[in-house]
Amino acid sequence: MGEIINGKEFAKSLKSDIRKFVEDKKGEGIRVPCLATITIGEDGGSMYYVNNQIKLCKDLGLEPKHFSLDESIKEEELIGLIENLNEDREIDGIMLQLPLPKHIDEKLVSSKISYKKDIDGLTDINLGKFYKGEKAFVPCTARSAIELIKSTGVKIEGKRAVVLGRSNIVGKPVAQLLMNENATVTICHSRTNDLKEICKEADILVVAMGKPQSIGRDYIKEKAIVIDVGTSSVNGKITGDVIFDEAIEVASFVTPVPGGVGAVTTTLLMKNLCEAFEENVY
Amino acid sequence: MGEIINGKEFAKSLKSDIRKFVEDKKGEGIRVPCLATITIGEDGGSMYYVNNQIKLCKDLGLEPKHFSLDESIKEEELIGLIENLNEDREIDGIMLQLPLPKHIDEKLVSSKISYKKDIDGLTDINLGKFYKGEKAFVPCTARSAIELIKSTGVKIEGKRAVVLGRSNIVGKPVAQLLMNENATVTICHSRTNDLKEICKEADILVVAMGKPQSIGRDYIKEKAIVIDVGTSSVNGKITGDVIFDEAIEVASFVTPVPGGVGAVTTTLLMKNLCEAFEENVY
Repeated sequence: MGEIINGKEFAKSLKSDIRKFVEDKKGEGIRVPCLATITIGEDGGSMYYVNNQIKLCKDLGLEPKHFSLDESIKEEELIGLIENLNEDREIDGIMLQLPLPKHIDEKLVSSKISYKKDIDGLTDINLGKFYKGEKAFVPCTARSAIELIKSTGVKIEGKRAVVLGRSNIVGKPVAQLLMNENATVTICHSRTNDLKEICKEADILVVAMGKPQSIGRDYIKEKAIVIDVGTSSVNGKITGDVIFDEAIEVASFVTPVPGGVGAVTTTLLMKNLCEAFEENVY
Repeated sequence: MGEIINGKEFAKSLKSDIRKFVEDKKGEGIRVPCLATITIGEDGGSMYYVNNQIKLCKDLGLEPKHFSLDESIKEEELIGLIENLNEDREIDGIMLQLPLPKHIDEKLVSSKISYKKDIDGLTDINLGKFYKGEKAFVPCTARSAIELIKSTGVKIEGKRAVVLGRSNIVGKPVAQLLMNENATVTICHSRTNDLKEICKEADILVVAMGKPQSIGRDYIKEKAIVIDVGTSSVNGKITGDVIFDEAIEVASFVTPVPGGVGAVTTTLLMKNLCEAFEENVY
């Protein structure tokens, strides 16, 4: 039987690191990291997400600044706000809640966020730096996957890693992060033949397909690390791509869903904020 | 015995396409694509490379504009020139010859080239777009590799591709391009274990390690396509990473060195220029 990688516990310890970081800054008489969130209109799902961010921000002693804008805002006004926030030395990170209203060019507006404050890692410049191997912010779900792999203490270098899924926010950046750690990485996707056979070669298997309960024992190498990034809603229950009960019998480590990768992402966003703060303040 | 993929022939046919494109534009009474090249100082190697570009440009009926700057140029003057070229509707592509003199911040200055005219595909924005799967310019050596694979007529989708090497200008972008074509891609590098075994799984093997004559018959799957991007100088002779005589016995297609990937790159730069022109003019 393998071990469960406990995302909640990992997030807890990360939170206590951030709280300590904030206390240290206060002790030094420096201001605390500040996150600007921008929402437009009142989309229920988005507000739920942003409210959670703001709550966590406060909870960790960080400073949230929320800009709640009317649906009627003009594109140039929104760009103006972003440019002000870019210039503002007291703002460290900027989160623009998507989607934007239809009269606003989402790509154009997003691209205006300074890559130095783009803690979500979504601007083209940030991505370019990331894939070049330079210092950059990484989409938090991808970062969560790699941090949980590292948390097992198993050496990544030289291992064979297989990533199922090639999305811009998970599959591709996870593959890059694993390569940065000197794993030999294969990316599989909907057009891959012999998926089972390829997965069976993986010492580290990261599953991000969005196909609930599709990866069972036959796909998993003995003693592998299995990271399940899937979060589908099945009969109102959040469900992963991996059949957990089968995986835990074969693998050495498995993340559960919920309580795995997803439990760490928002906290990592706050860690990105602290890193942006350090670049910004010093 | 496999077939040789003839890069020179491929370049020849590409050149004739470009000449036809230029003639068509002239016929329509439109100006021809214009490439701005910037060199600073008189580094012999760089000048040789740039002179070749200019020669090819003229040869294809394209318009070169060469800016030869003195070593003493100030950073802000160079940036000023680049910004003028960005604005200039008659300029379609900008090539800044590296390395720059030490008093100039190479990263800063390169980043000023508009991604719309960055036909070498080196700016962060361009890279970000490329890795996101958006329209972008691709470093020409990587593009050459994928174009030569396509020239065989063999279907890429669903095939297993292995890329040896993870450089920013070859390995990583080639892997991305192969994934765009729906291959299942593995990237290997200096820390990869069982390299031979992994290569043996490849229907498409792209070798870009810079280790001359290191990949022989034992690394090649029967009927694979082998693309050799290596160009080392050994006893004054340009030498690939692949042992050609062994590869051609096992593989279905092999690129020679010289006369393979390298024979196509500068011509692809001109194709990129024509593509930039189409975006710029229409």
